[in-house]
Amino acid sequence: MIVNYRELQKNLRAPMSLLTDLTGQEGFFHDETIYRGTPSAVLIAETKDDLITAVRFCHRHKIPITTRGAGTGLSGGCVPSEGALVVSTVKLNSLIIDPKRKIAFCGPGVITKTLQDEAARYGLTYPPDPASYEESTLGGNVAENAGGLRCKRFGVTKDYVLGLEAITADGTLLKTGLYNDNRGFLLGDLLVASEGTLAVITEIAVRLIPLPGRGATLLVTFDAPEKAAQTVADIISEGIIPGVLEYIDGDAAACAVAYEKTEGIDEKAAAILLMETSDIDKERQTSQIRRFCEKNGCLYLQIESDPERVDSLWRVRRNISNATKAIAKAKISEDVAVPISQFPHLVAFVSEMNRQSPLRINSYGHAGDGNLHVNILSLGTDPEETAQIDKLVDLLLKKALQLGGTISGEHGIGLAKREYLKYEFDPATLEAMCSVKSIFDPNDILNPKKMFPVKN
Amino acid sequence: MIVNYRELQKNLRAPMSLLTDLTGQEGFFHDETIYRGTPSAVLIAETKDDLITAVRFCHRHKIPITTRGAGTGLSGGCVPSEGALVVSTVKLNSLIIDPKRKIAFCGPGVITKTLQDEAARYGLTYPPDPASYEESTLGGNVAENAGGLRCKRFGVTKDYVLGLEAITADGTLLKTGLYNDNRGFLLGDLLVASEGTLAVITEIAVRLIPLPGRGATLLVTFDAPEKAAQTVADIISEGIIPGVLEYIDGDAAACAVAYEKTEGIDEKAAAILLMETSDIDKERQTSQIRRFCEKNGCLYLQIESDPERVDSLWRVRRNISNATKAIAKAKISEDVAVPISQFPHLVAFVSEMNRQSPLRINSYGHAGDGNLHVNILSLGTDPEETAQIDKLVDLLLKKALQLGGTISGEHGIGLAKREYLKYEFDPATLEAMCSVKSIFDPNDILNPKKMFPVKN
Repeated sequence: MIVNYRELQKNLRAPMSLLTDLTGQEGFFHDETIYRGTPSAVLIAETKDDLITAVRFCHRHKIPITTRGAGTGLSGGCVPSEGALVVSTVKLNSLIIDPKRKIAFCGPGVITKTLQDEAARYGLTYPPDPASYEESTLGGNVAENAGGLRCKRFGVTKDYVLGLEAITADGTLLKTGLYNDNRGFLLGDLLVASEGTLAVITEIAVRLIPLPGRGATLLVTFDAPEKAAQTVADIISEGIIPGVLEYIDGDAAACAVAYEKTEGIDEKAAAILLMETSDIDKERQTSQIRRFCEKNGCLYLQIESDPERVDSLWRVRRNISNATKAIAKAKISEDVAVPISQFPHLVAFVSEMNRQSPLRINSYGHAGDGNLHVNILSLGTDPEETAQIDKLVDLLLKKALQLGGTISGEHGIGLAKREYLKYEFDPATLEAMCSVKSIFDPNDILNPKKMFPVKN
Repeated sequence: MIVNYRELQKNLRAPMSLLTDLTGQEGFFHDETIYRGTPSAVLIAETKDDLITAVRFCHRHKIPITTRGAGTGLSGGCVPSEGALVVSTVKLNSLIIDPKRKIAFCGPGVITKTLQDEAARYGLTYPPDPASYEESTLGGNVAENAGGLRCKRFGVTKDYVLGLEAITADGTLLKTGLYNDNRGFLLGDLLVASEGTLAVITEIAVRLIPLPGRGATLLVTFDAPEKAAQTVADIISEGIIPGVLEYIDGDAAACAVAYEKTEGIDEKAAAILLMETSDIDKERQTSQIRRFCEKNGCLYLQIESDPERVDSLWRVRRNISNATKAIAKAKISEDVAVPISQFPHLVAFVSEMNRQSPLRINSYGHAGDGNLHVNILSLGTDPEETAQIDKLVDLLLKKALQLGGTISGEHGIGLAKREYLKYEFDPATLEAMCSVKSIFDPNDILNPKKMFPVKN
């Protein structure tokens, strides 16, 4: 696709922000998945007006447009569509916090952690914290409806979005509710999780909450994944809602410890639960959790109070993704989620898959929410191995749906799972989604060929 | 509008469920507002198939269709559109609770309180509890995105809807997520709050949570509404989240006490806060709340522990709506909401409006969420009085928007506020909503002339 970008270039704040020679710009061709795209140009937008100008230019010339933040996505959502103009929003990072109203007004390029740090100066926080929160942007979080470690207690991205400003494909600027998005049709909720296919987000108003105190950190080990999983189901079924409840299987923990040496992680444990209790009733929650851990035959239970050691335990969890990436040629990372009562069945299924497959598979996740990230490690480009992986992914996603769950708890559909959306929704419902797409983007220029099964 | 309903009648489970002679059926012509509609027939659907049959019949013959539950709405949402077939869903009250997965599958006619009572048998609850919860239906709650007394701590209807089954105007059955609605376009969130204008809801899956314990009940009185309002802002700004935090002005309390005699309500108080602390840290919350009440110069603070007296205090709150209705010829009931830091300004504005107007005005609401219900009592059909009321409503809604709030916290837009939606959203965003409507309902048969400003 050859596009004459001169007209766009001259209307930008800084002409240099448009890159048409893409040599050495391969970082814009992918996210954290194995997918690669071939864009026609890259715009690193300097202002909101640049975004609007770019969308209107693409509208006039029917050029696909793929918006991206930090590129930390795990479903290929921001991998450029064929011939697309890639628009990076990382420089659109204005951040205004209104501490009285507990609202933050964010450019789409604000980094999740930056928002949290700035909010903390007012005793506030923005709870959703995807594992990549030190790099990921709010725009990407909204597009993928990101979850995070604290999502069981505090909810996911959509629970915090009060209002959005966004540009539809024809360059129309929409403003959904600002203080709240409970009236009219909830268009803000429609744009959340739409992965750049309905509109380009230009501003995000999010709700902040008072910064909770730290709870107690618990490290518990088990000799079988199923025992850890049953403990999770027991805790949540009892109505206990810890601040964080992470499941880590033995192999995932070993990867993380090899990546960054950590004291106190038993490398022989088959599974670990890493938890932070609610800050409010630490003691009661700790003793309730202990009871369920013991009932399910835990090997070892440690309540960690030294702040440095607490941090190092949580780094184990946050390092898993990078650690597995470092040892594998490629990592297929799935993020199924199931109702909590089905979590033990899901974990048992993955254990069995692991036992039967010659591939290295490990798993971990925000178990309190029924989320399980399953990594299948690829050693190369052997076509036979690829076929094996595809088969395992297929089995896993269908199992999650069969257990009443979803193919993606928090990573989105993107390219990785677009052929599976038809198993999660029936044809009429998918068709209704496509009708909505056609209204917002009649020429199919906004991140085409994402989310939905490709029609032949 | 003359419609030949014979074709529909013969396809129903019970032909008698279709009423074409509407003498004595005026109960179906209105909700709890002053609005009245003129339907062409009323169907009391016996089965989900009846609903589908009715929608498809209306689609073929381009007949408007207005769905209704218990008719307890406060914005005219279910008042029949001109010539509409009214479809009552009250008999579609199948209710299946899966306690392990903590999901309830409800017909649209399930009464909110019935769901709560049934869930309680498993130690679970469904938190949204509009004041009319003993009569209102889940279908109506979803259509209006109802809130309730517990919404600050637990959230509103949309926060509990996991999945919906619904029929679009052409008779297509949609099923949005069931276990969760976080993937694909969030069509479920789009149907919530759409007031019967996008689809007819046939089944609702809601998330249940473990039944919380009861907190401590606090009754606090003040000699000025502004002091009570400032106390609310102080409590919430501090990050304290009580189970319930209701504001009741002196006149609203007096109405309720006159309606049902209640001990212990000081009839001279200018404002009352009625609160229930969180169950988890009762003592700490109670002392924190007490500190803010005293700081703002409360007259009287009582911690009530006798269960019977606790119930009687909460009945005061629940009786306000019926009590004011009983003394006025008509009651104009607004439900603005503002960010919590602006709540004292809103209350001051209403106090001033009250002082300057010859009309009787009282106010109360889920103050913890910034909601304020404002009743303007009408004594008759004097056109001058109506004009006065319209002017007050106009001033109030615009004030709420100016304070960064919304024209409707929880009652919906319906007929009552449709001309005001254009102040809450800009023309392009309203137009996008109308485009969505045109996709779901191209012939404009689903509850026409609701929600959106009427085009001339």
